[in-house]
Amino acid sequence: ETIDKAQAGGFLVILDGKRNDISSSAEAYARGYLSEIEVAGEVLPSFWNVDALTVNPYLGEDGLRPFVQEAIKHGKGIFVLARTTNPSAAFLQDEGREEKVFVKVAQLAWNMGQNSLGESGRSSVGIVVGATYPEDMRFLRERFPGLLFLIPGVGTQGGDLEALQTSFGADGKGALVNVSRDIIFAFREGPDRDGFRFAQEARDRARFYQQKFWGLLRR
Amino acid sequence: ETIDKAQAGGFLVILDGKRNDISSSAEAYARGYLSEIEVAGEVLPSFWNVDALTVNPYLGEDGLRPFVQEAIKHGKGIFVLARTTNPSAAFLQDEGREEKVFVKVAQLAWNMGQNSLGESGRSSVGIVVGATYPEDMRFLRERFPGLLFLIPGVGTQGGDLEALQTSFGADGKGALVNVSRDIIFAFREGPDRDGFRFAQEARDRARFYQQKFWGLLRR
Repeated sequence: ETIDKAQAGGFLVILDGKRNDISSSAEAYARGYLSEIEVAGEVLPSFWNVDALTVNPYLGEDGLRPFVQEAIKHGKGIFVLARTTNPSAAFLQDEGREEKVFVKVAQLAWNMGQNSLGESGRSSVGIVVGATYPEDMRFLRERFPGLLFLIPGVGTQGGDLEALQTSFGADGKGALVNVSRDIIFAFREGPDRDGFRFAQEARDRARFYQQKFWGLLRR
Repeated sequence: ETIDKAQAGGFLVILDGKRNDISSSAEAYARGYLSEIEVAGEVLPSFWNVDALTVNPYLGEDGLRPFVQEAIKHGKGIFVLARTTNPSAAFLQDEGREEKVFVKVAQLAWNMGQNSLGESGRSSVGIVVGATYPEDMRFLRERFPGLLFLIPGVGTQGGDLEALQTSFGADGKGALVNVSRDIIFAFREGPDRDGFRFAQEARDRARFYQQKFWGLLRR
């Protein structure tokens, strides 16, 4: 219901599902979130029907392919987890002989999107890059100028707002910065902790970020 | 409903959800699948309430911790994806400087289970190891004699039945071999493709595997 309302209001909805699987199971997830499912011979629209979905790359390319194919087919988007926001992110993502795992993942996402490039030079396949690792974000942007970034970690998780400037492409686009908890829980910082001022506090906090981001882009 | 029936029949139910997330979201997933959730101040039992859940390690230890804690607290189990069954598994899982990623993951799972060791010397935290990579399975068993293995990839995916022998611990236990599609779709190989003989074909195929496995253990 929330998804329907947001889409009716002209917003794109990204589901941070971090899904991952292979062959028939991956196809079922992809259809279930992005397009339509087949039950007992009947085709039903996806219950979720979101515009983009995050996926986890641990299984490699054949775990991502069903998601990417379904996204391209239906004009939806996929964001592959590359550099996550959390403290343990480096444990596995910084491994790698010639190249770190998170860079290999970004390269894979870029390659897999090549047959879905739009007029903007961007594709249906982007990556997730945490704002809590600004150096890695800068490195990835230099290496992949056209890759779409979904950037969590700003706000509650303490990501670096200033460093976001380096996350955008040369055209000032190419990055979607996501702030969730700091906006939806903004009311808890005020005098009213019961949430009666939820909408107002959330709106004010969202405006605060909006102005910050515009400021970054204007420089 | 299927889960309830299986549990009432004395079976343990393992959900292959491959879930992964951090902090509050990971806790919510862990509770939602394994124990109980809190909605608007009310505590409700988990809709799923399975006995064990598979999780994806791409986020590192702090992505696994909420799942492990919830499992230990409620006598449930967690299986961390280490070596998956699919052809692209090596892309990311074979990376690593001193040690391959899938071995690091197995070590992490072993470490995280140390404060939940039971009388058997096994813990609430195991790993997923695909039967399609028998050499890696053998290596992991030698390295981690007490770690519980969940082994998919036998049957439809063509995993090596003979090699399963090396997957068990010294006591002939420690490995759960899972065969799904080859059993539930066994009826499609027979003359009746409409599924009227589903139960019988599935039972026969399951017996076939059961005898194979007993044969392996008797050697």
